[in-house]
Amino acid sequence: MQVSVLRAVLDANDLIAKENRKQFDAHGCFVVNLMSAPGSGKTAILARTLEALRGRLRAAVIEGDVQGTLDADRLAPLGVPVVQINTDPHFGGECHLDARMIRNALPVLDLDGVDVLFIENVGNLVCPAEFSVGEDRKVMVLSIAEGEDKPLKYPLMFRVSQLLLLNKLDLLEHLDFDLACFRANAARVNPALPLIELSARTGQGFQAWVEWLVDEVAASATRRAS
Amino acid sequence: MQVSVLRAVLDANDLIAKENRKQFDAHGCFVVNLMSAPGSGKTAILARTLEALRGRLRAAVIEGDVQGTLDADRLAPLGVPVVQINTDPHFGGECHLDARMIRNALPVLDLDGVDVLFIENVGNLVCPAEFSVGEDRKVMVLSIAEGEDKPLKYPLMFRVSQLLLLNKLDLLEHLDFDLACFRANAARVNPALPLIELSARTGQGFQAWVEWLVDEVAASATRRAS
Repeated sequence: MQVSVLRAVLDANDLIAKENRKQFDAHGCFVVNLMSAPGSGKTAILARTLEALRGRLRAAVIEGDVQGTLDADRLAPLGVPVVQINTDPHFGGECHLDARMIRNALPVLDLDGVDVLFIENVGNLVCPAEFSVGEDRKVMVLSIAEGEDKPLKYPLMFRVSQLLLLNKLDLLEHLDFDLACFRANAARVNPALPLIELSARTGQGFQAWVEWLVDEVAASATRRAS
Repeated sequence: MQVSVLRAVLDANDLIAKENRKQFDAHGCFVVNLMSAPGSGKTAILARTLEALRGRLRAAVIEGDVQGTLDADRLAPLGVPVVQINTDPHFGGECHLDARMIRNALPVLDLDGVDVLFIENVGNLVCPAEFSVGEDRKVMVLSIAEGEDKPLKYPLMFRVSQLLLLNKLDLLEHLDFDLACFRANAARVNPALPLIELSARTGQGFQAWVEWLVDEVAASATRRAS
């Protein structure tokens, strides 16, 4: 019974996600749902990405956290619109963003002035993978400090994502992280998942990630125009 | 409405958790519910702990993962009973263990031969905090690679735990982790939460953790006998 209740929750979520998607398309706004475990570096990646996009794409951010505005505060100096969602009025803190939360946040943003909207999900490798929010692309982050076994232990996140960012590459020499083994594990779970290895601390690998974004936004605009 | 459904789920869980607890008490078995985000080092801590307890306490482990037996396989050579729970038949993979899953795993274990049972929860800083499984103590792990802001962003886990293990201390010189700031953040969220700083890689800090365990098991036996 619990499972069927949750199935109904997911179906209701998908309906609202489709409405969100229509709204994003109507305003020509490309949306990235950024997901990872806690502390993988989503906010650090975002901060550097927003700097790299300045003058190329107009960006905005929706921050999802159980409590607080720490991440929104970190991004505020970068001069892009940032909206904070706190999930904690529900059930001691929802462990993911859902489509309804995003819908409720949208009136605050002027989507006509946004080329790319980043939605930073709650730090969690399980549930966010199950809830679409109307995004164009799901992008997941994994830090090499988390270990090379994660694709095998949390496969759904690796299956639903369209891009994997492997972060904290600057720590490679200090960890027992087997990069070849990680690549093989990720490919075993989702052979079609592109992988970009980077470091939000040093900027290594960021060019590939920024080019991916710019290309995706352009391709999305072309699709909408045709 | 969703919230009331979940409230009912939690109430039902608490009932089964109390039954589990009675069973643990009847067999004189002390139970630790070990929780953290993915990749914080729960299994590495367990492996070293099981070695340190050899000859002092008889241990057993219940491993909770969405999929696979990787962690159980890692612990198997240590010669203690290990039971694997996979949560993935439910809802694309439950993000936490609940009391029913633990109840279903118990018949496999000879609890009379176990002084301390470790339950390694699914890697997640949110939902496991909400589901008791009948444990004596909730122990949480945080890796310093996850950042010093985590108590403020995931406060419930820090509030419900009776001990905090700060892991990967060997990486301190390679990270921008502010230890004093972390201690202050943790104390702000839960001033009563004891903190042990350790490294599962080097063994630093393990003596304090093992003594904590031995003392807790002894105190629990005394309570039961009185």
